[in-house]
Amino acid sequence: MRNDPQRLRFEIGARDGSARAGVIHTAHGPIETPAFIPLATKGTVRGLESAEVVELGYQLILGNTYHLFVSPGPERIAAAGGLHGFMNWERAIITDSGGFQVFSLAHGGVANEVKGSGRSGDHGSKVEISEEGARFQSPRDGAELFISPEVSMSIQAQLGSDIALVFDECTPFHADREYTARSTERTHRWLDRCLAWHEREGPERQAVFGIVQGGTHEDLRRESAQAISEAGVDGIAIAIGGTLGRDKAEMAEVLAITAPLLPEAAPKHLLGIGEVDDLLGGIALGLDVFDCAVPTRLSRHGVALAPSPETRWRLDMRKGKWVGNREPLVEGCPCTTCQRHDRDYVSYLSRAEELTAVRLIVIHNLTYMHELTTHARAAIQAGTFNNYRSAILSGETPWTA
Amino acid sequence: MRNDPQRLRFEIGARDGSARAGVIHTAHGPIETPAFIPLATKGTVRGLESAEVVELGYQLILGNTYHLFVSPGPERIAAAGGLHGFMNWERAIITDSGGFQVFSLAHGGVANEVKGSGRSGDHGSKVEISEEGARFQSPRDGAELFISPEVSMSIQAQLGSDIALVFDECTPFHADREYTARSTERTHRWLDRCLAWHEREGPERQAVFGIVQGGTHEDLRRESAQAISEAGVDGIAIAIGGTLGRDKAEMAEVLAITAPLLPEAAPKHLLGIGEVDDLLGGIALGLDVFDCAVPTRLSRHGVALAPSPETRWRLDMRKGKWVGNREPLVEGCPCTTCQRHDRDYVSYLSRAEELTAVRLIVIHNLTYMHELTTHARAAIQAGTFNNYRSAILSGETPWTA
Repeated sequence: MRNDPQRLRFEIGARDGSARAGVIHTAHGPIETPAFIPLATKGTVRGLESAEVVELGYQLILGNTYHLFVSPGPERIAAAGGLHGFMNWERAIITDSGGFQVFSLAHGGVANEVKGSGRSGDHGSKVEISEEGARFQSPRDGAELFISPEVSMSIQAQLGSDIALVFDECTPFHADREYTARSTERTHRWLDRCLAWHEREGPERQAVFGIVQGGTHEDLRRESAQAISEAGVDGIAIAIGGTLGRDKAEMAEVLAITAPLLPEAAPKHLLGIGEVDDLLGGIALGLDVFDCAVPTRLSRHGVALAPSPETRWRLDMRKGKWVGNREPLVEGCPCTTCQRHDRDYVSYLSRAEELTAVRLIVIHNLTYMHELTTHARAAIQAGTFNNYRSAILSGETPWTA
Repeated sequence: MRNDPQRLRFEIGARDGSARAGVIHTAHGPIETPAFIPLATKGTVRGLESAEVVELGYQLILGNTYHLFVSPGPERIAAAGGLHGFMNWERAIITDSGGFQVFSLAHGGVANEVKGSGRSGDHGSKVEISEEGARFQSPRDGAELFISPEVSMSIQAQLGSDIALVFDECTPFHADREYTARSTERTHRWLDRCLAWHEREGPERQAVFGIVQGGTHEDLRRESAQAISEAGVDGIAIAIGGTLGRDKAEMAEVLAITAPLLPEAAPKHLLGIGEVDDLLGGIALGLDVFDCAVPTRLSRHGVALAPSPETRWRLDMRKGKWVGNREPLVEGCPCTTCQRHDRDYVSYLSRAEELTAVRLIVIHNLTYMHELTTHARAAIQAGTFNNYRSAILSGETPWTA
């Protein structure tokens, strides 16, 4: 870990067990943690203007190096003043390194989980991985593209994010020990290359997070945690792997092994995980920020988040049963959708595939996630996080501690 | 014409030639004219919440009887407190009668112009028209549906619109004289049936507009204008026919014949026409309100309205030429899109088919139409409407009189 307040400063304000409430100070303002991070994969939180994401209370969004590299290209974004200028977002930005996307294409089975691609990898499925980096075809026009640790860092420098992630190999969750060991070692060599490039040429005020890999193997996780912790990074991200938490028990086990191995003082980002129970589990283990496509993606399928553990916190508004239902999506939810519209109307719009439905639900879902973490923060500060977590997991209450 | 201020009162505040600036007072507030009317065909202005349409300054929206009859059905809307309650819109609503859609399906050639259907009439193309009404298949599930003058008025009563339109046969623009004559006569018999039903069973505070038909035949237009003017209607709508103004010269001629035949005191609605030059032409002839799908539909195709007569006031943001362009869509436009984002970004989002592009452009396009009519109103009040119209038609200025 390096400690350079010019790039990033993490203040832990309160602790409750391993959970903590803090503030990450970046070049574009503070991020109060624990925090959920909405995806702005391709330079927009789908369907929302930047100003609206501010109104929803978010202080940090996640842009994607792979997608923005493919289109519109980092030069065009740099010419607009970086991703902040391009999308007119004045708060903090973290950028994914592109590793997850490239290796999802390479490993095939995870290709259709590639975040934000919306296609099943017809183009771009040919990926050649070498020690140097990854060569692949652009899903836009088939042109040959190349990402290496250095290229990823230089793209992220052009994007001008406040936090860059190192370029890593995203090991499939269930790869065998030997593959995972080799892959983890390469990830560490790539980490060194990323940091060397960034030291020489990276933006002065851009922080860099390392990524802990190691699959499900405790010794490899331990090795990876140690390597990342000893490197000159400003924070640590944890990659769970391509299954994106489908096997929740195994994921929880890996997290429980990994989290205590990491330096207390580091801000910690759990990559790609943001379902309600997983997020609360991560907070309990001392993780701080969580990005996830689910809340925004669900809105495009007519699914609203709600205090309903038995349906994985999801209400499918395309079901017929909401006809005539005069309740808001969630009673007591402060979002404009719940203030103004009932389930009957949202459900009608969803079934009619009206754009307005996507909008109404994405505003609700992002409010839901924001309220969930804001109240988790308050509970940690009050020393009642365990009660809070239980109340949420039992569906007793939407958010209030 | 009837004169019942309980239903509707039209005050003409200023005149400039035949153009006038007025206020239509309805059960849900005033509409300052001339006014553009955004379509809320299926119970939402596509992609926007009702509260946002209010913020854009609109006082009147248009719902569609045919589409809302097919889904979700008038009973469900009535149970929500009518269309106002269903979509939580507290200002005025006018409802189309469904005639245009039914007859577009029947006349085949116009089927793919059916406003808001988005399909090319695979279902629902079988329409049987009799003196009684029109029988057709639901495009939703193939069920047999029937709309007559009485059914249309009763649906509109359930929708609870402030202004209902009578159920008419929408004659194809280029039908021969004999067909048009017979059709116009039937439209007048249907007018009587609509008014009789409304007199007996219509909501007390709902106004009814008659519709002038007659195709391109001067004598039939004259006959139709007279019949509508003598009927007990609260206002008059003018139907141009299925070609939706493709032949602008012929349309202008028909309007120039029709408009002077109508009573000065009536509020006048030009149906389905809202391109910039046509709308200004209509205002010059003394027409007051204009609905049109174009400004909202264009936004879904990445096309922004701009002071560019040579491209029919359209900028295609999907073109490559906007890369690096730091101008707003329209210099001086007060909309949030133009305040916050440049052409480079809007164009990138449009080409990437991001939902956010539709949103940014629809907000701009509806602001454009609102500014256009607001400044037309001011010009009429200042006695400078002709100069204003010339300045707009020459592309000299976006809006300012």
